[in-house]
Amino acid sequence: MHNWLIDGVAGDRIAVDDRGFTYADGLFETIAVRDGQLRFFDYHLDRLLNGARQLNIPAPERELFADEAGDLVKESEYATLKIILTRGTGHRGYAPPVTATSSRLLGLLPGVPPARTKYIDGIVVRHCSTSIGHSPATAGLKTLGRLEQVLARAEWEDTAITEGLMSTTDGYVICGTMSNLFLVRHGVLVTPDLTTCGINGVMRRIVLERAARIGLQWRAEAVPRDHLGAADELFVTNSLIGLWPVRRIADRTYPVGAVTRSLMAELAGAGISECAGP
Amino acid sequence: MHNWLIDGVAGDRIAVDDRGFTYADGLFETIAVRDGQLRFFDYHLDRLLNGARQLNIPAPERELFADEAGDLVKESEYATLKIILTRGTGHRGYAPPVTATSSRLLGLLPGVPPARTKYIDGIVVRHCSTSIGHSPATAGLKTLGRLEQVLARAEWEDTAITEGLMSTTDGYVICGTMSNLFLVRHGVLVTPDLTTCGINGVMRRIVLERAARIGLQWRAEAVPRDHLGAADELFVTNSLIGLWPVRRIADRTYPVGAVTRSLMAELAGAGISECAGP
Repeated sequence: MHNWLIDGVAGDRIAVDDRGFTYADGLFETIAVRDGQLRFFDYHLDRLLNGARQLNIPAPERELFADEAGDLVKESEYATLKIILTRGTGHRGYAPPVTATSSRLLGLLPGVPPARTKYIDGIVVRHCSTSIGHSPATAGLKTLGRLEQVLARAEWEDTAITEGLMSTTDGYVICGTMSNLFLVRHGVLVTPDLTTCGINGVMRRIVLERAARIGLQWRAEAVPRDHLGAADELFVTNSLIGLWPVRRIADRTYPVGAVTRSLMAELAGAGISECAGP
Repeated sequence: MHNWLIDGVAGDRIAVDDRGFTYADGLFETIAVRDGQLRFFDYHLDRLLNGARQLNIPAPERELFADEAGDLVKESEYATLKIILTRGTGHRGYAPPVTATSSRLLGLLPGVPPARTKYIDGIVVRHCSTSIGHSPATAGLKTLGRLEQVLARAEWEDTAITEGLMSTTDGYVICGTMSNLFLVRHGVLVTPDLTTCGINGVMRRIVLERAARIGLQWRAEAVPRDHLGAADELFVTNSLIGLWPVRRIADRTYPVGAVTRSLMAELAGAGISECAGP
């Protein structure tokens, strides 16, 4: 059973003219709930509220989100909290209403811990043919418009493949369908630049902070898809899973290398217990 | 008061986990209702059902849409029928559910006829800085993901400006925020190619059919934004308004020229009475 609060009231339906539904005019977050606690809640709120500012969607105070979220998750051992913030109803047509409104939804969704082998042995990844479009106005944001990811994820059913990588039409790899991507080359951590598309993941932010903490050099830059073959190590991250090493893309295999392992240890130290060694 | 049928049942709310809301995983149509009739209903259903096939969303038969739509609009003199088709609820995460479902919504929305001057004198248009992303997997389709259009439309409040043009980051003009764009150059009709982004408008299809009928040469091709200055005539179309000549973009003015006027006469003949001369 799902459990939703919509503008503070229990319910599980929204108005058909909510702009989140009609135009994907909104943002969302999915937050790991562990032992009744919200993991990196402040970082998720940072992204959500920055996005709302950028899209000019009025957002409630952090405290209101914290109160409602805390109530929803307090008895939950392992789950996911979803927050959705839309531009609300009112005014037909693309122009935002003159008097700004918003809809705020918080929902507690059941979760299942990923298999341990994904952390220990790594995952198998493929390249998706569905591309990701350059959209600087929403780059970095987790907007409700995720149809490209849906179509990319629909490209395979083989359960041996865990994630698919998405590239732009001009051949730069940006992300996985549900994750951010990292490469290690000559001891340097590299992650695709997200100034024109892709989602600025909360776990990406944490990995980069932790990399700096252990003196690991990192760069965000344009990554041509055919540069992946030259990487020494490869991994993907998101806030629900933490970090998964990539052990294979097509015919190319990668080790779960020293840099990946040291970052996993850092993440485990930051409270992401999934990333702790066996 | 709005008037909605959701999967055949009167109502105005949808499930918060409908994939149309959570991922913009769906399509929509807005159809002109005039004197109790749906204008170019078959063309709208063509696009909707082609889109559903392309996205692998199961769609009901045309007859069901026609029956429900007919009931909603039969007493309506001037309105808009909106149809929304989503991948339904079920299965969390981007992967579509193994057992395909869909949600079908039809709603009757009030409409107001545009001012006659827009047809006679033309409209003022601006260039938007919000770009439109290359997304070949959904190009041409009217998906629920319209945040780029929302942000582009939010760029201006001056009511003297009717429409804003959207271009790709590499400088090709694609469309208006709510319309398709046409240029006339040396007697040839040119409209932006939509193979990587933009919406394949129903009125665009009709204009191209009618152009062929009157022996007017036309081409769909990549249009660099700075080529607009060299156009002899310019106009925009959509299925609710028909055709509006463009009389000005920034400092450049355009006449309501002979080609535009002959196409408007054709559209008036095809039942789009707004386009009839004064």
